Amino acid sequence: MNAQIFSIGTEILLGNIVDTNSQFIAQKLVEYGIDLFKMETIGDNADRLYKAFKECDGKVDYVITSGGLGPTPDDISKEVAIKVCDLQEELKLDKKSYQALIDYFNGNEESAMSNIKQAKFPKSAIILENTLGTAPGCILTSKKGTKYILMPGPPNEMKHMFESEVAKHISKNAILKSKTVKIGLLGEWDMARRIDLDRTEPTISPYITDEGPILRITAKADNEKEVDRQLDIGLEIVNASLTPYVITTQDVRKEKVLIDLLEERNEKVSTAESITGGLISASIIDIPGASNVISESYVTYSNEVKEKVLGVSRETIKEYSVVSEEVLSEMLVGLYNKTNSSLCIATTGYAHTGKVWIGVLYNGMKYTKLLQLNGDRNRVRLRTKIKVIDTAILVMRGEYENNIGI
Amino acid sequence: MNAQIFSIGTEILLGNIVDTNSQFIAQKLVEYGIDLFKMETIGDNADRLYKAFKECDGKVDYVITSGGLGPTPDDISKEVAIKVCDLQEELKLDKKSYQALIDYFNGNEESAMSNIKQAKFPKSAIILENTLGTAPGCILTSKKGTKYILMPGPPNEMKHMFESEVAKHISKNAILKSKTVKIGLLGEWDMARRIDLDRTEPTISPYITDEGPILRITAKADNEKEVDRQLDIGLEIVNASLTPYVITTQDVRKEKVLIDLLEERNEKVSTAESITGGLISASIIDIPGASNVISESYVTYSNEVKEKVLGVSRETIKEYSVVSEEVLSEMLVGLYNKTNSSLCIATTGYAHTGKVWIGVLYNGMKYTKLLQLNGDRNRVRLRTKIKVIDTAILVMRGEYENNIGI
Repeated sequence: MNAQIFSIGTEILLGNIVDTNSQFIAQKLVEYGIDLFKMETIGDNADRLYKAFKECDGKVDYVITSGGLGPTPDDISKEVAIKVCDLQEELKLDKKSYQALIDYFNGNEESAMSNIKQAKFPKSAIILENTLGTAPGCILTSKKGTKYILMPGPPNEMKHMFESEVAKHISKNAILKSKTVKIGLLGEWDMARRIDLDRTEPTISPYITDEGPILRITAKADNEKEVDRQLDIGLEIVNASLTPYVITTQDVRKEKVLIDLLEERNEKVSTAESITGGLISASIIDIPGASNVISESYVTYSNEVKEKVLGVSRETIKEYSVVSEEVLSEMLVGLYNKTNSSLCIATTGYAHTGKVWIGVLYNGMKYTKLLQLNGDRNRVRLRTKIKVIDTAILVMRGEYENNIGI
Repeated sequence: MNAQIFSIGTEILLGNIVDTNSQFIAQKLVEYGIDLFKMETIGDNADRLYKAFKECDGKVDYVITSGGLGPTPDDISKEVAIKVCDLQEELKLDKKSYQALIDYFNGNEESAMSNIKQAKFPKSAIILENTLGTAPGCILTSKKGTKYILMPGPPNEMKHMFESEVAKHISKNAILKSKTVKIGLLGEWDMARRIDLDRTEPTISPYITDEGPILRITAKADNEKEVDRQLDIGLEIVNASLTPYVITTQDVRKEKVLIDLLEERNEKVSTAESITGGLISASIIDIPGASNVISESYVTYSNEVKEKVLGVSRETIKEYSVVSEEVLSEMLVGLYNKTNSSLCIATTGYAHTGKVWIGVLYNGMKYTKLLQLNGDRNRVRLRTKIKVIDTAILVMRGEYENNIGI
């Protein structure tokens, strides 16, 4: 089985919007084991679209489109597909779709009439209900056997229609599932050299994300049981190769892992942030449930405020500089004295050079680390945040050693 | 003039990444007045790419590609374009590109050799320098006159190459410039009804962004002077219609506008953040220059910490609830007493309902506002942050009135 994706709309060609629909559909096709030949974006231009459809006709099993199903003369996807499939003769009003239009317009028949072309389909069409907008989709089959699956452009309508209506009409070559494992502290290369990635059933692939490196385990088979068996094997391999650096095998943010650990133990976290400027605390608070575990956070950016709020000594700053293990230690101790939180987190660093000290004080034990990070200011801060959250999680699990590589 | 865009890479067809390069290039083509026929995404498949290039050859002025310029046999864009242009005979090593490779690998000739195909071009090629990666781009011209502009796939490399190298080789049909004006406090509808958007030369279009509503003024003409004249007219109209809500007509973040105001007056800002959890302080600190103006920031999420750190009275919280003007006022006063900062900013609210109080205390005057915001937790926090930064800017400019609409 194979397919080609079209996204239709002049607004994409003008650069007004990014086409994200095609990615969504592409991912689904991968899941179903269907080969994707090409993605194309075409404006609201009937001739060009006709030519493009004609080129696919009989060569691919599925032509999958989004966009161009609106009520105006600019919207041409259905008309062009009908022409390619040669189904003009059998066009008729679909009563259910027309009633849905009337309902959508709260009973206003005049508005429904002005959208009426959206409710007309060839007799042989499979009509795809749109519960989120006015444009139903449809599946048309050409004489050469290509199925044209036409969906609306708004991403929420398209995605919902795909899941609830289209999926059941697509022949799946295989079942494919994947699982994401979030890794902590290790760099991409360090992670890759600890695990054998040259394997199948399942495949294991490394990616770099905003939350640091992840591994995606992907299994493919013709039945669900076999797919699940492969995923379990993949998880075992990852755990065996990368413990203790496996932060989570669930689809949750790392901050959530930290919050859960704190909540289980009925403990609290406080932060003293210099280079991160409140980013650590803001990203913890962004997770539901944070209110049970977050205590006080202090943003202490200048030297004066470090002295005043945390009691860092002026002499220490003078002797060792503000980005030093000594200042970091005094920040941690000062924070603990102020808050009594079981978990204290502190950062100090230079965003422009990427030299950063991060530290965690947990139940009386202090863990500090010097980082040398690449990237712009924003990226240095983000990576500092991730490294310190990773560190806090490993420390709480009792799996952190100060010589752990980063 | 007309063009077709290709993005090349199997990772896009697998849905692993969204293609954002094509949008960037499309926007540039609009600026240059060049018509875009189509965007296509093709995998690392030489036959399909050859066929697709052949279809464009002689029909469009520019074929613009990103991706497929890497060092591996999978990377086929240049090879295919050379074949379509029939330039195989005249391939030769470009010394400058090869030296750039050696430099990129810190003098390691072995690594440079393994990437050597990236430094080979037909004699007639215009070579496009890549200062950010190993893959130089190039422009090849076919016998039928189509120019193939080949760029690397990583968005930062592609964008930089487009701006610094490609732009000068493209014939522009017109000059088009636009200017973005950031608006504060007003909602999109409120903004739109205050200004006549139904006009040309220049056009003025409203957009919603992460920083709130913006207006984009776009002017098009055949000479720069006329374009600049139109832009000035647009700015005048926007200022006349929307003062005092115009936060900035420059391409800078709103936080930068606030920092500049503080720096001019030699004043400092402190924050006491409940619902925003450190987001305000983190986004101020993210701007270069913030260290001169940011003083202390306190994240006071729980009632206990509001009492302990800011001196909010337990009775006030009990009587009025923690999301109330009374508690906000005590947070502001407590913050001022702790910090003596000219500008004090505080927030308290419920992320799940969107009920939020924001407040600013500036030189002894207090400004508070109740917001009712839509969206998920993250969005409520982000919008709270924007509204309070808007408020602080207008207050400092002396243009805020407590009855200002939001």
